[in-house]
Amino acid sequence: MSSTEWSKREKEIARKAFKVAYNREQQAILEDIRRRTSEVSDLAELWRLQGYLTEKRIEIGEKYDYRYSVLDFVFARLIWEGWLQEEDLEGLADEKLDEIRRKTLFLKEGDQSQFA
Amino acid sequence: MSSTEWSKREKEIARKAFKVAYNREQQAILEDIRRRTSEVSDLAELWRLQGYLTEKRIEIGEKYDYRYSVLDFVFARLIWEGWLQEEDLEGLADEKLDEIRRKTLFLKEGDQSQFA
Repeated sequence: MSSTEWSKREKEIARKAFKVAYNREQQAILEDIRRRTSEVSDLAELWRLQGYLTEKRIEIGEKYDYRYSVLDFVFARLIWEGWLQEEDLEGLADEKLDEIRRKTLFLKEGDQSQFA
Repeated sequence: MSSTEWSKREKEIARKAFKVAYNREQQAILEDIRRRTSEVSDLAELWRLQGYLTEKRIEIGEKYDYRYSVLDFVFARLIWEGWLQEEDLEGLADEKLDEIRRKTLFLKEGDQSQFA
């Protein structure tokens, strides 16, 4: 199986892992925003929060891209950022897992240029 | 005195009234945003809040325009919206108060086109 082909079973695993990561990050963002909001004491600070929320919205919109053509990058980033563990992807073909590991390692080594 | 000239005393009154309205609206916005944030339960709702905050930021930036050439409009709007009472402007020349009253009435009559 080529790493660009996804079986029905692999698609189920991928979809589930994607949702797991999204839900984890969603929870973290909501807690972070509630804390930040509780600390806001004037409009200047509120507008900084507005700017932060705008950036976060763009970041999340770009990050959670469920296209099979980019999913190895997406999973590598989610593992790198801590929203996903490799175990969450158990059941994917070995070559996909190898590719995701390779990309995760690449990110861990500090070169994020392909995600800029 | 022309209504476009502002004495030192009038400028003090205007500056103080402007700040009073700003502080009142600031307080209301902060309470509103804290309440809205506490009700947010997922990212879709958070992004709606982000959109709301963006609109609010633009609205406030446009509204609180402290140029003497537009201050009668600004005060009329602040009275119309309830952030200022006419008493807060006590000490301004009668013709300025008349002009502000005239504009407030205009707003109350429902034609907001000049503020669009």
